[in-house]
Amino acid sequence: MKITLAQLNYHIGHFEANLAKMVDAIAQAKEEGADLIVFGELATCGYPPRDFLEFDEFIQRSDAAIADLCRHSEGIGIVLGAPDKNMDPRGKNLFNAVYLLSEGKVQYVQHKTLLPDYDIFDEYRYFEPAKRWGVAEYKGKRLALTVCEDIWDIGTSDPLYTVIPLDEMMQYNPDVIINVSASPFHYKQAEKRKKVVLENVLRYKIPLIYVNHCGAQTDLIFDGGSLIANSNGILVSEFPYFEECVRTVDLSSLEEAKSTVGQPMDTSDAIRCALVTGVRDYFQKLDLKRAVLGLSGGIDSAVTAVIAAEALGAGNVTGLLMPSQYSSQHSVDDAVLLAQNLGMSHHIVGISPAFDILTAQLNPLFEGRPADVTEENIQARIRGIYNMAYANKFGAMLLNTTNKSEMAVGYGTLYGDLCGGLCVLGDVYKTQVYALAATINAREEIIPHNSIAKPPSAELRPGQLDTDSLPPYEILDAILYAYIEERKGPRQLKEAGYEEELIAKVLKLVNSNEFKRYQTAPILRVSQKAFGLGRRMPIAARYF
Amino acid sequence: MKITLAQLNYHIGHFEANLAKMVDAIAQAKEEGADLIVFGELATCGYPPRDFLEFDEFIQRSDAAIADLCRHSEGIGIVLGAPDKNMDPRGKNLFNAVYLLSEGKVQYVQHKTLLPDYDIFDEYRYFEPAKRWGVAEYKGKRLALTVCEDIWDIGTSDPLYTVIPLDEMMQYNPDVIINVSASPFHYKQAEKRKKVVLENVLRYKIPLIYVNHCGAQTDLIFDGGSLIANSNGILVSEFPYFEECVRTVDLSSLEEAKSTVGQPMDTSDAIRCALVTGVRDYFQKLDLKRAVLGLSGGIDSAVTAVIAAEALGAGNVTGLLMPSQYSSQHSVDDAVLLAQNLGMSHHIVGISPAFDILTAQLNPLFEGRPADVTEENIQARIRGIYNMAYANKFGAMLLNTTNKSEMAVGYGTLYGDLCGGLCVLGDVYKTQVYALAATINAREEIIPHNSIAKPPSAELRPGQLDTDSLPPYEILDAILYAYIEERKGPRQLKEAGYEEELIAKVLKLVNSNEFKRYQTAPILRVSQKAFGLGRRMPIAARYF
Repeated sequence: MKITLAQLNYHIGHFEANLAKMVDAIAQAKEEGADLIVFGELATCGYPPRDFLEFDEFIQRSDAAIADLCRHSEGIGIVLGAPDKNMDPRGKNLFNAVYLLSEGKVQYVQHKTLLPDYDIFDEYRYFEPAKRWGVAEYKGKRLALTVCEDIWDIGTSDPLYTVIPLDEMMQYNPDVIINVSASPFHYKQAEKRKKVVLENVLRYKIPLIYVNHCGAQTDLIFDGGSLIANSNGILVSEFPYFEECVRTVDLSSLEEAKSTVGQPMDTSDAIRCALVTGVRDYFQKLDLKRAVLGLSGGIDSAVTAVIAAEALGAGNVTGLLMPSQYSSQHSVDDAVLLAQNLGMSHHIVGISPAFDILTAQLNPLFEGRPADVTEENIQARIRGIYNMAYANKFGAMLLNTTNKSEMAVGYGTLYGDLCGGLCVLGDVYKTQVYALAATINAREEIIPHNSIAKPPSAELRPGQLDTDSLPPYEILDAILYAYIEERKGPRQLKEAGYEEELIAKVLKLVNSNEFKRYQTAPILRVSQKAFGLGRRMPIAARYF
Repeated sequence: MKITLAQLNYHIGHFEANLAKMVDAIAQAKEEGADLIVFGELATCGYPPRDFLEFDEFIQRSDAAIADLCRHSEGIGIVLGAPDKNMDPRGKNLFNAVYLLSEGKVQYVQHKTLLPDYDIFDEYRYFEPAKRWGVAEYKGKRLALTVCEDIWDIGTSDPLYTVIPLDEMMQYNPDVIINVSASPFHYKQAEKRKKVVLENVLRYKIPLIYVNHCGAQTDLIFDGGSLIANSNGILVSEFPYFEECVRTVDLSSLEEAKSTVGQPMDTSDAIRCALVTGVRDYFQKLDLKRAVLGLSGGIDSAVTAVIAAEALGAGNVTGLLMPSQYSSQHSVDDAVLLAQNLGMSHHIVGISPAFDILTAQLNPLFEGRPADVTEENIQARIRGIYNMAYANKFGAMLLNTTNKSEMAVGYGTLYGDLCGGLCVLGDVYKTQVYALAATINAREEIIPHNSIAKPPSAELRPGQLDTDSLPPYEILDAILYAYIEERKGPRQLKEAGYEEELIAKVLKLVNSNEFKRYQTAPILRVSQKAFGLGRRMPIAARYF
C-alpha cells in the first residue's frame, strides 16, 4: 500500500483555500499511484478554530468540504481530520474526528480521545472525548486512526489522561497507526515528537504515519516535520520543517528501510525559522505586505528587523528611528547601519518637539511635581504614535519588538514600546535573543556588533541602564524560566539557591505586570509554556 | 440542624485574608448556635485562580488554610470548597472539591463532577472530574455535597455532560443538598439560578442550600444571591445581591417556611450594581484608590464616570476634557456639567498644539498624502497620552469608556480611546448604555440631557457622526447580539430578515477587528457570552 503524506499550511476558516490545497495534493497522490492520502487534524477548517466551532454554520461549511472531498475519493482513500457532530444529546455537541473517505463516501470516523486542555490548548471547551474505538479497514489493511494527542500519553509515570486509545484499538489488530496532527512548535517539540512516535511503535510493534500541519495561525507556529516509523522502531522518514511537503511512501518497503533522520536543528536556528514563519503567515493570512518597527539601535529591534526582512522581504520593512535628547549618537548610527545592512528603508524623526509640547500642556495639571516615570512613558508613547501613524498611513503593520524578559517584568511602556499588531520576540528571553543574534551574524555581520555588545538601555533618562532596575539578564532569565516554565514558587526558588529578596522582587514584578501582558498583541509561541494565551493569570490577585 | 450560609468576597491568592474572613464567619456561626457553616467554591484561594493552580506551592498554601480551618471546627461542621490533590497518577493532578471539616479533621471530601469549560470557564484545564460519589454524614444528617455546576445540568434536552452527580448520590438517601458555588454574574443569571435550584429540589424532594461568592475578581463579578429551597419547591430565603452576608437558618423549620423571595432586579439596575462592584473590587484588590477617565461629553464616558464615582467616591475620580478643533462647545459644556453634578474634579487640556507638532514632524514621511484615518487616530492617541500621563503622575488607573457595540466593530483607536486598565462598559451594548443612563437619571438628572439626546459622534473630523460609518445602534446591536451571543452565522441572520450586505459588513467589521479586542483591558462581564475572555477567536482567520 502506497500512502501520501500531505503536510500543508491551512488557513483557519478559509474552507475554499484549504479544500483547493487538499484537492491538489490528492491529484499529486493519484499521479504517484498512492492508495491513500493523509492530511492533518481539523484540516477542513484549520487549527485552532477556537469559538468559530460554536457556530452551526461553521460546522456546516466543514461538512460541505468533506462532501466535496468525497467526490475526489474515487480510487483513493482520504484520511483527514475534521469536526464531527455528536448525535447523542448528552455531552458536548462536537467530536474532534479523523475521517476515512473512499469511493465517494465517508467510510469510517474515529473520534479523538485525548483532548488537550493546557497551555494554548482548549479542546475540551468544544469537544466530547471518544466513547468507542475501532479500526478502519481499507484495501485489506486495518488502520488505527488517531488524532494528535491520542498518541502522546504513554510511558509516563504521571499520565494526564485515564485512557490510552491505542490500547483500546489493539484488540482489532491494526496493521498501521495513522496520526493526523496539529502539533504546534516549541523549541523542544521536534525531539519530543520523535521520542513519542518511537515509544508508540515500540509498544505496539506496527508502523506509524504521523502527519502534521505547517505554517502559522496567529500566535501558533506549526513546524511540519511529519514522520514515518517502522515497527522496528526506526524513523525511516522525516519531512522538512516549516514548509509544505506532499510525498508518497510504500508501506511494504518500510520494514527494510534505514533511518534517514538527520541531526536535530540547532535551537536558535529553529526559533529563527519559527519566528520567520510566524511573521510571514500572520501577514499573508491577513492580506498585509508591509511592516514598520521602531529601531532603537538595540538588539531586540535589530533581531526583529532581521526576522521581518526574512519573512516579508527587506523592501517591505521600514524602520523608524526616533531619537530623544537621551539617545546616544551611536544608537542612531547602529540603527542606520542595520537598516543599510538589511537593505530596508528607514526614517529619522525626533521626539523632542512633541515631548516638549505635551509636557508643557500637562504642566498646569501636574502642579509642579517632579519628573518621574510619567515623562519616560510619554517618550515611549510618542514613539508609539509615530509608529502607528506610519502603519496607518501606509497600510503597514507595526511589529512589537519586546522580548520575554522585559514583558515578564513589565519593563516596557503600555501604549508605547508595547504597541504593535504582533509581538515577535515576546516568548524569547533576552539571553535567547543574544543567541539569535549570534546565529544571524554567524555568516556575516548583519546586526552591528555594537548593538550586541553594549549594555542594554531603554534610553529614557540620562545614562539609564536596564541593570539599574533589573538583575543581570542571565540571573533574571533563570528565575523567570523557573517561575514561568517550571511553575516553581518562592520556596522552591529559595531551595534552588536564589536570594529571598531577589525572588520576591522578580515574582512581584511578574505578578504586578500581568496587566501589561494582558493588553499585548499576540506573542509568537516558541516555548513550552506559551507566554501569550498559554499563560493565564488573574490580574487582581495577591500571591507571592 | 442550624446551618450558617457565608456569602463572602474572597481575594484570589490572598490566603490570609480569605482565612481571616472565614474564621470571623465561623465565630458568628458559633454565636448563633449553628451546627454547620457553608462557604463558597475554592474558598481558600478564591475563584478563578487560573494558572496559579499549576503551582505546587499554591496548593500547599490552600492545604495549610484547610489545616487552619480544621482547628476552628471544634463544635461546628465546616463545608467549603478547595482544591484536592488527585492521588491517582492518571488524570489531572487536582480535583475541584468540597470538604466537610469537623472536630479538628477533614471528615469528608467530594469532588466536583461537572467541570465547566465554556465562556469564561476553563476548569478542565486544571481538574479531573469526580470518579466516585457519596454523602457526608454529620450529626445524623446525610449531606449531598456538590460544587456549583454539579447542579446545573438537569432537565435539559441537550445536556452538556453525560453524568448527573446528584442522581449518583441519591442512592445514599441524602437529607439535604449543599452546593458551594462561584457563579459569576450575567444579567440573566439570578433568574436562571433560582430556576435551577427549584428544578433540583423538585427532582430530588429534599432541601437545597446554595452558597455563592460575592465581589469581583478582575473581569468576573460574583453577585451573591445565595438561596435556600425546601423540598416542596419553595425558595424560602434569598440572600442580598452584590454584598457579603452571613446568616443562619434552621433546617427543621424550612418545610413550613413561606417564600420570602422578592421581585427580580431590573436588568439595568442589576448591570449598574454589577459594574459598580466590578470597579470597586478591581481597585481595592489592586490597592488603588484613584481613577481618571476622558470625558468627551458623550454618554459612554458619562455613564462610566457615574459608575466610577459610585464605586470609588467622586473625590477619587478625575475627568480629563481634551477638546480638539473638531470638538463642539456643547461637548465641553456637557462634560463640565456632568463633573459638577457628580462632584468630581476635572481638567481641560486641548490637543491641538500637540496634534500640530506631531503631524508636522510626520509630514516629511507622509510625502504629501492626504489626511485620512491616520490623523483621526493621532488625536485619539494624544488623548491616550494625556490620560495615561495623569494616571502615572497621580497613581490613578485610567478607565476605558468603550462600549460593547464600538468594541465589536472596532470603532475605536487602539492605544487611543481604547487605553485603560479596566474596560467598564465593554460588555454593555450601546442600546444598553442608554438604558443605564435612564436608570441613573431616574431620580435626578446627573447625566446632562444633551449627552443622552445628541447623536453619537467621535468628533474626530468636522460634523462626524457614528451613523456615517455604522448602522443605527438599534439595528447594529440586534445583529451583534445574534452573532456574538447566539452564534448565528450569515445564513441564519439572513433568515432572520437582515439585508445580506449589512450582515456582511457587520460580520466583517467584527472579525477584522478581533485584533483590537485582543489588546483591550479586562472587560467587566455582564452578558452570558463574556466579551472579554469568554469569546476566543483566532485573529488571522478568514470566515464570513
